[in-house]
Amino acid sequence: MVEAAGRRRARGGGGAARRAERTAVSVETARYIERNIPNFEVLTTEALEIIEHNAETVLEEIGVNFVNNPAALELWREAGADIDGERVRIPRGLARQLCSTAPKSYTQHARNPERNVEIGGKSLVLAPVYGPPFVRDVAGGRRYATMEDFRKFVKLGYMSKWLHHSGGTVCEPTDIPVNKRHLDMLQAHMTLSDKPFMGSVTEPSRAQDSVDMCEILFGKEFVQQNTVMTSLININSPLTFDDVMMGALEVYARNNQAAIISPFIVGGAMAPVSVAGTLTQVLAEVLAGIAYSQLVRKGAPVIFGAFVTSIDMNSGAPTFGTPEASHITYGAGQLARRLGLPFRSAGSFCGSKLPDAQAAYETANSLNMGLLSGVNFMLHACGWLEGGLVSSFEKFVMDADQLGALHKFAQGVNVDEEAQALDAIREVGPGGHYLGCAHTQAHFKTAFWRSETFDYKPFETWDEEGARDSEALAALRVEKLLNDYQQPALDPAINEALNAYVVEKKASMPDAFM
Amino acid sequence: MVEAAGRRRARGGGGAARRAERTAVSVETARYIERNIPNFEVLTTEALEIIEHNAETVLEEIGVNFVNNPAALELWREAGADIDGERVRIPRGLARQLCSTAPKSYTQHARNPERNVEIGGKSLVLAPVYGPPFVRDVAGGRRYATMEDFRKFVKLGYMSKWLHHSGGTVCEPTDIPVNKRHLDMLQAHMTLSDKPFMGSVTEPSRAQDSVDMCEILFGKEFVQQNTVMTSLININSPLTFDDVMMGALEVYARNNQAAIISPFIVGGAMAPVSVAGTLTQVLAEVLAGIAYSQLVRKGAPVIFGAFVTSIDMNSGAPTFGTPEASHITYGAGQLARRLGLPFRSAGSFCGSKLPDAQAAYETANSLNMGLLSGVNFMLHACGWLEGGLVSSFEKFVMDADQLGALHKFAQGVNVDEEAQALDAIREVGPGGHYLGCAHTQAHFKTAFWRSETFDYKPFETWDEEGARDSEALAALRVEKLLNDYQQPALDPAINEALNAYVVEKKASMPDAFM
Repeated sequence: MVEAAGRRRARGGGGAARRAERTAVSVETARYIERNIPNFEVLTTEALEIIEHNAETVLEEIGVNFVNNPAALELWREAGADIDGERVRIPRGLARQLCSTAPKSYTQHARNPERNVEIGGKSLVLAPVYGPPFVRDVAGGRRYATMEDFRKFVKLGYMSKWLHHSGGTVCEPTDIPVNKRHLDMLQAHMTLSDKPFMGSVTEPSRAQDSVDMCEILFGKEFVQQNTVMTSLININSPLTFDDVMMGALEVYARNNQAAIISPFIVGGAMAPVSVAGTLTQVLAEVLAGIAYSQLVRKGAPVIFGAFVTSIDMNSGAPTFGTPEASHITYGAGQLARRLGLPFRSAGSFCGSKLPDAQAAYETANSLNMGLLSGVNFMLHACGWLEGGLVSSFEKFVMDADQLGALHKFAQGVNVDEEAQALDAIREVGPGGHYLGCAHTQAHFKTAFWRSETFDYKPFETWDEEGARDSEALAALRVEKLLNDYQQPALDPAINEALNAYVVEKKASMPDAFM
Repeated sequence: MVEAAGRRRARGGGGAARRAERTAVSVETARYIERNIPNFEVLTTEALEIIEHNAETVLEEIGVNFVNNPAALELWREAGADIDGERVRIPRGLARQLCSTAPKSYTQHARNPERNVEIGGKSLVLAPVYGPPFVRDVAGGRRYATMEDFRKFVKLGYMSKWLHHSGGTVCEPTDIPVNKRHLDMLQAHMTLSDKPFMGSVTEPSRAQDSVDMCEILFGKEFVQQNTVMTSLININSPLTFDDVMMGALEVYARNNQAAIISPFIVGGAMAPVSVAGTLTQVLAEVLAGIAYSQLVRKGAPVIFGAFVTSIDMNSGAPTFGTPEASHITYGAGQLARRLGLPFRSAGSFCGSKLPDAQAAYETANSLNMGLLSGVNFMLHACGWLEGGLVSSFEKFVMDADQLGALHKFAQGVNVDEEAQALDAIREVGPGGHYLGCAHTQAHFKTAFWRSETFDYKPFETWDEEGARDSEALAALRVEKLLNDYQQPALDPAINEALNAYVVEKKASMPDAFM
């Protein structure tokens, strides 16, 4: 059944056109951001060179550990590294040289080709929160996430105009056995949305399932020739590459599927407390990880990732939207561009337990910094709450709304004759009013970005309507989007084949909850 | 009495030292920000040149109105402008040439010289919200502001570590007659705080009262030789300079006191809907206003101001923290630097009725943009709510807390040997933990900025403590700061003289409430 569907799709030829036709009744999604603004750069060239030199010193002198992975050690040995137990010491310059075969940018295909995204260069692709075991909403409070919650988040992502990507583990469906939930999650992304998505990384076999299911959805040949998943490979900072994550990376790289190679750092715990020290370690880890991806398959698409937060030294809690995290992210962006690699960082990060002012300050700090630091792929762009423990329904739509402001800002400033508006200034003159002038009438519909979630009403109206705060307004938006949701069309044969794959695969294993 | 106090102070000589001594028991205030980071620039040189050319065209062809102000028209005529009724047309290049005598930066003195601020260059001075007729707090809701509210805000400003300036009309004390409230407001800033402050601009005579009261506080000679006030002169955009604001400007300029010359623009209403058009008008207005200040007194200290927001074309409401406002502010900063003038813009702007997530997203967007756009004087840096109709106690302390993050970010990245932390990376090695290492122990106290207001506790602790949101936490902070408040010492003779001035002045006029 699976194979039959795969063959049928591969045979088709005009698959892309057919897919587009099938999704004709679909919600609007903005094209990924193409920046027409400069990047903000916080480090001088001299500072960057010091950090690059030190990162090579770390790789050469200290090295990195590849744990439980003799095949990886062998690849490294062949490439010229010095192997000592599980420690890999990489001669100065070697990792950087190996990284040079990774593409500067790549296209991730969606089943609806209008939603393909370009990752790298001046682009910014926005994807939702990843990983929380809990969800929160106004009605139900904080609770363990279920598969039903997961599906709701995928639907919200599909309905969110400014979100280009369906993401991956938008929450952990804790009601499904741990060894089977990736199947349900992938099926949800594939059938409830037509935006690009991420594959499973929690076991190499689950990465393989992800590839297999993509072959059903896109056709086998298409998958081998194109990138249809971008998946998240975290490094066990400091300087450790475990066999599970590397196993998943190997599956993806061999199948030409993309991976974000991402140090996961709470500053002061997994890296030095200083910005320069953290950047040194981040660069060393990324160089080693991306070099390894290219040892597995030259040209495999990868992203320079950097998940970085600071820590509250009073409580030990990670802190978000902080100035130190911004310094590190801006610096990491500069390092990624000097390597010629796509860059992943930032997100709707916050430590607050509620989608309140704290959450919004921290998130806005991080989103703005993400745009200006040259991030190409922003995971967690909406919905993150409580340090990543919670996916919040209300915050998902609040954040997703704010992403519209990033789109508008990234367009830069138009200074053509119409935008110069000299005739409008002449028409109105001193003491006049622009609301009725010809230039305003011609442009008012597109001139200003506006929130689809928040309140712009006069005080009296707002008060009469119940004096609702942002969370209450967002809850209304969640409800509206879920009510308006219509599933994008999918070839019934593919739908059936995906379902059969999931059912068969689940039946082949006992449940595991650890 | 007043004169006696003034003379006594002027005679003293070591007045600054004495003032410092008297305030020895005082709360910590951070030094104004000196940026060690670049500015973000959104406009190309070509775009800037187009806008500059067009602004000169506006001044030459359309001109500006100076209303009810024959003396101003005469000054302009003498300077070479073309006068037609109240319309002043300024030949290309003249306004820019006149602006060249304005200083690039200036020192505003505080009665505690440790709190003097430098305005211009790479500095950023933060001042609180200005102008709202209402206040809001958790306990009392939204209500008309009173003088008691005003005093509380001055106390909060004094207690706020990251706020360098006491501001001006932190709220409108609507329980005091409109023609007398400036006296109470000035007295509050002068006696309840020792940070620099702003003068009254609502009548030229009130500007003169401000100067007179400063002469009591600082000594007559000191005031004539130094700048002790920075006051807000709004332009009636488009292109109109009214006699009240210009009258106040004239008083301040003649007395060597600083003025922010600031277009007040809701885009699409008081300026074109386009960014380039708005920037053209802003520049024309600022050129005319600052040129005029220099006609009144060459070398008078002034600031290039730009209060700009966009508009919600559905409701007509001004909107805040929007991408268009950011474009304009970044562009205005570039124009100000090309003119060599200090720049005022941005603030804790938001449209929300409550200090909730909407308020915080909008505010954080604006604060971050203010830092990166090179703002030198940020009015409204904390406490603004509901489009400027409301001064919020809780938002004041939330915003003031976030200003700490701006301070830290503006320091830039240290890459000295200690910050490089190579020894720490060596000590910890792959798979280790940095919390206990020597480098972390040496630096953890200063490594990371932390909020003094928000929540970093474990979920369970936070939940047990009442699951408080940001507003509730901020209310606790307001209470704590007001409880901890201690009035900074002031020479009793000066205190008495100020009080006598206010009492006598009030007795000399009937009450006016319009």
